[in-house]
Amino acid sequence: MPGEHEPHEAIWMAWPERTDNWRYGAKCAQQTFVEVATAISKSTPVYMAANQSQYNNAREQLPDDITVIEMSTNDSWMRDIGPSYVVNDQGERRGIDWHFTAWGGLVDGLYFPWDKDDQIAQKICEIHGDDSYRAPIVLEGGSIHVDGEGTLYTTAECLLHPSRNPEMTQKQIEVTLKEYLNIQKVLWIPKGVYNDETNGHVDNILVIAKPGEVLLNWCDDVNDPQYERSLDAYNYLTQQSDAKGRRLTVHKLPMPGPLFMDEAQASGIDSTKGMSRSIGERLAASYANLLITNKQIIMPLLDQKYDDQVMRQLGTIFPDYQITGIPALEILLGGGNIHCITQQIPAIN
Amino acid sequence: MPGEHEPHEAIWMAWPERTDNWRYGAKCAQQTFVEVATAISKSTPVYMAANQSQYNNAREQLPDDITVIEMSTNDSWMRDIGPSYVVNDQGERRGIDWHFTAWGGLVDGLYFPWDKDDQIAQKICEIHGDDSYRAPIVLEGGSIHVDGEGTLYTTAECLLHPSRNPEMTQKQIEVTLKEYLNIQKVLWIPKGVYNDETNGHVDNILVIAKPGEVLLNWCDDVNDPQYERSLDAYNYLTQQSDAKGRRLTVHKLPMPGPLFMDEAQASGIDSTKGMSRSIGERLAASYANLLITNKQIIMPLLDQKYDDQVMRQLGTIFPDYQITGIPALEILLGGGNIHCITQQIPAIN
Repeated sequence: MPGEHEPHEAIWMAWPERTDNWRYGAKCAQQTFVEVATAISKSTPVYMAANQSQYNNAREQLPDDITVIEMSTNDSWMRDIGPSYVVNDQGERRGIDWHFTAWGGLVDGLYFPWDKDDQIAQKICEIHGDDSYRAPIVLEGGSIHVDGEGTLYTTAECLLHPSRNPEMTQKQIEVTLKEYLNIQKVLWIPKGVYNDETNGHVDNILVIAKPGEVLLNWCDDVNDPQYERSLDAYNYLTQQSDAKGRRLTVHKLPMPGPLFMDEAQASGIDSTKGMSRSIGERLAASYANLLITNKQIIMPLLDQKYDDQVMRQLGTIFPDYQITGIPALEILLGGGNIHCITQQIPAIN
Repeated sequence: MPGEHEPHEAIWMAWPERTDNWRYGAKCAQQTFVEVATAISKSTPVYMAANQSQYNNAREQLPDDITVIEMSTNDSWMRDIGPSYVVNDQGERRGIDWHFTAWGGLVDGLYFPWDKDDQIAQKICEIHGDDSYRAPIVLEGGSIHVDGEGTLYTTAECLLHPSRNPEMTQKQIEVTLKEYLNIQKVLWIPKGVYNDETNGHVDNILVIAKPGEVLLNWCDDVNDPQYERSLDAYNYLTQQSDAKGRRLTVHKLPMPGPLFMDEAQASGIDSTKGMSRSIGERLAASYANLLITNKQIIMPLLDQKYDDQVMRQLGTIFPDYQITGIPALEILLGGGNIHCITQQIPAIN
């Protein structure tokens, strides 16, 4: 499985629509998705999946050079429902189609049903003319990061959560990941971001800049519940080596906020059972939830206190990349950020 | 607009599903569509559009090398709802997106609504990465045939029908067709096949073998209502020349039957207002409703009395083509045949 820093043929996204997650009929979120898609399309062709009910609206809202494809979804977290692609030495490409159960299935999943989301990986592979493998494991694309050189990063909080694959041991999960993704070493960060409803996806706490070099969502306030989580991750990562035996360079990314859902942000949302969208809810905000695509970084703007500082920091770590910041509060309110709503198709020759 | 005998990049079809047109839950029709798609795929890649509700079933029923694409449709007549492609001298390709109103709209259309069918042309162009033009005219793809050298064949019965473009004169319709398809001459056959619920589509009475050479659905029985229709078409065509000034060679294809819907054929169909599916109904059966694609002819088998004879005749007219016959009664019962359920994407370099 190639790393995110390697060349992309395309980025897939899915148009937001469900009114029990996105406030005010998802209209504000749709505008943010348009901005993200437009920014990505400067370097990478974008495919936007849209339900039939929103096809015309998505087509009208998006620039002409973004391809809109009808595809039924339950929500719009393409990172978690799209295929994870592998490429072999012959330059052939195949998609891994994980079992998707809405971040916890009947135990603590965020919505029901999730059957349409679970078909997305297969449908995307079909459109690109690529074969896909159905993998015998419940997994979301955002719960793993790979460096393209044999190392996979994940969190124990998510992958060992009783709502995912309780019948599998940690060892069995490792074996499956190694087999399907051609991974030699799995790094188990203990926990992700505090109050992340994905059960701590790694893509909300960590970025792989390149093999051996990562960025970690960091909290300096010892009284914040994120403090210990980030510290544990830092201590773990700095004591590990990757599949190639490299020690890891770990950059600390400042945490936004902390941010809490205010009255306006909690309004205009249809009543629902799965997702917690009430006033005062701690938001799982993190700058790590960014996208790397073809020498561009698309980063979320989340907190005026830190936005510029983080952009400068990224400019130092990624000197030959174009850094674009997108105001991303609306995505955060829906439970994720820019990495969560995108999925790359690796380029092949 | 290239002729059907020119090279194709792909053929599109749409999976049949609606239970008020296709008997017994469309299961028999689906099997026939699988056979047609499989035959076409011997020479041309096939894309099958399927509603979300039938996506998994279509994927399971069809061979792996046929691409299944989710696409919401009202029914499955891809010839009439798909784009008509034009190619320019630079080898660029664009799709014409006609207004589709289910063969007669609110006047004598066969179903309501038809909004999903009307989006199909745009969605197909999007998937191939081609621009599309929305043409300011109600038209179905099966109501026109072109020879790829500036001649368009149609029927006055359909294109001048009060249910299509009553506000336009014959001249205005010609001007629009000439402008959008780069046509120099329009040939107006008076009428199509008797009791054809499309109001006499040209693709059910005529095949263009190549520029200047056509096949006509023919009836020898002076007492049959088809007799005068075919005779008028023959007399008209043999007195015309095409856009290049060629006189036309007109081959006579024997008419099957006549065939009438029997009790079993009229059973298992949900009650509906638009379509006439009752016992004794005359079927608009014609061997002309065949597909030409990349040196293959996919022809409907409709009547044991004539099937072999027609196949031999096609072998003579198309000496370097592979001729494949598919038992096609199930498509006929739905109101059309193999040409009606297919639409080509022309190849470009």
